[in-house]
Amino acid sequence: MKTEVIQLVEGREEITLTTYIRDNVNAMELPNFKRPAVIVCPGGGYFDLSDAEGEPVALSFMNMGYHAFVLRYSVFGGNGFEADANTIQVKPETVHPNPMLDIGRAILCIREHAEEWGVDPEHIAICGFSAGSHNCAMYSTYWSQPIVQDYFKVEKDMLRPAACILCYTLSDYTYMYEVSLKENEFQRNFFNASSKIFIGENVTAEALDEVSPAKHINADNPPTFLWATSEDNLVPVQHTLRMAHALADANIPFEVHVFEEGPHGLSTAGQSSASSQSMCYPDAEKWLPLCGEWLKKRFALKLPKRAMWEIMMEKDLKG
Amino acid sequence: MKTEVIQLVEGREEITLTTYIRDNVNAMELPNFKRPAVIVCPGGGYFDLSDAEGEPVALSFMNMGYHAFVLRYSVFGGNGFEADANTIQVKPETVHPNPMLDIGRAILCIREHAEEWGVDPEHIAICGFSAGSHNCAMYSTYWSQPIVQDYFKVEKDMLRPAACILCYTLSDYTYMYEVSLKENEFQRNFFNASSKIFIGENVTAEALDEVSPAKHINADNPPTFLWATSEDNLVPVQHTLRMAHALADANIPFEVHVFEEGPHGLSTAGQSSASSQSMCYPDAEKWLPLCGEWLKKRFALKLPKRAMWEIMMEKDLKG
Repeated sequence: MKTEVIQLVEGREEITLTTYIRDNVNAMELPNFKRPAVIVCPGGGYFDLSDAEGEPVALSFMNMGYHAFVLRYSVFGGNGFEADANTIQVKPETVHPNPMLDIGRAILCIREHAEEWGVDPEHIAICGFSAGSHNCAMYSTYWSQPIVQDYFKVEKDMLRPAACILCYTLSDYTYMYEVSLKENEFQRNFFNASSKIFIGENVTAEALDEVSPAKHINADNPPTFLWATSEDNLVPVQHTLRMAHALADANIPFEVHVFEEGPHGLSTAGQSSASSQSMCYPDAEKWLPLCGEWLKKRFALKLPKRAMWEIMMEKDLKG
Repeated sequence: MKTEVIQLVEGREEITLTTYIRDNVNAMELPNFKRPAVIVCPGGGYFDLSDAEGEPVALSFMNMGYHAFVLRYSVFGGNGFEADANTIQVKPETVHPNPMLDIGRAILCIREHAEEWGVDPEHIAICGFSAGSHNCAMYSTYWSQPIVQDYFKVEKDMLRPAACILCYTLSDYTYMYEVSLKENEFQRNFFNASSKIFIGENVTAEALDEVSPAKHINADNPPTFLWATSEDNLVPVQHTLRMAHALADANIPFEVHVFEEGPHGLSTAGQSSASSQSMCYPDAEKWLPLCGEWLKKRFALKLPKRAMWEIMMEKDLKG
């Protein structure tokens, strides 16, 4: 396999795509064999990026037979829980739509290297966690709209994601704002700081609406897989349910799994990503095989019915 | 992650250990965190090494949270099905016990780099396929005996494998010889060529007995996981059952799964390794999660009950 870190934006060392390219070991008879790929967007509240939601997830998708990539998209930096909403200084290069445009950059970068890496460019999925999931939900909803299309000015379908995987997503900033009004001071400050670093100085009702993908699902949204835990007390499960509801309304194929137990930030929900035993939930861990089955319906490798060596060996064995 | 190819024997470029070292992303609070590791030995009848039984399997163990290594041990080269038993020339450097000693070399190499790679040296498993599985069965049985100990002359336990995973193994050359007498000419030639390249010119009854690990299980054999398919017509399932029987006789902890359907050489039995649809068996594919559960009983990562950041976050959320 081949792993390297590619800088996606000139002058911004922090925006990178880490490649996890599989060797072409199981299709040696098919020299032009191409694999689907999954781009993984870790979470971190648009402040930070959680490594536990990067490589461990990339390894899970590689283990399913696909290439994988970890995207470090635009984030503010620092610790969101320590930020003061009143004094925090907005950074123009990390506000919306920059994080979403980084996904477009990643897709175009993979398309550019498709031949070299053996990627099937028509089967690139995006998979995010928490804020990374919101970023994927945003991209899924806006990739075909002027805000993305006019920026890149490439042929429309070059930017199309083939599938979208949303892990404990945030999908509705308006709802989050309404809930925050009923919360304690710490939580209100956290919401205010989070929306300021992502939206900018003017957190208007229109702005909150725009960054709420659940309110803008359209016919170009790709098939979507969602999962969350009903106990999540950082990003409530309602965000997942609202997104699923909107996908159902728009007749977009989707699958959703809500597990009863588990806190926010489970990643794989197993020891592959967990930093403590308290982040291991055997029930929630089933999201990966469930997602694998769902993905296979669209991404199954194009293998021949029978391999040449099989036919040869049988002939030999029969003597 | 870090992947590199390390040459294990001076002057022999073909004997290599490919590393699949995970980043320490899920235990950042534990700077001295060590992971168990699994060494994967591909099959190929001691003629060749099958890439489909290398990287895809390493990825499966990485996905369970462990480091992985693919060992290219001593093999004859060429295609066993085309070899003529009468004219084939034995190569002294690839006959028994060389393939088994290569496993010892791999374990010592990993121990040497344990600090650098973050490997827990007391938890190194070996996992083989077909002839690679025979090699692991041999090493498991002989690592504590003079044939291995006298060669390396290190402290005995430096060479101990913590667990052994045998996929469609070959375990009894004497049995294989007896069966070959009843077979057709092609199959007899294949057995004769195979045993000659592995044992040497003198394929005596004593030699066949020595390379039959099922006949020499002892108290130093590690806990062992075995699986095969009952339909395998290249290495009959009896080899797996004989090995399991011998382990049971010696009171060595073991687990065995025989799936009804599937030919020889399934590797992961899924699209991660298959070269054709005919090598995908959803039932047999369950060997990996079964093996993962079994391995976890011994190899579970030593994670704290709760992580510092969890405790901090809860405090923050409560305001």
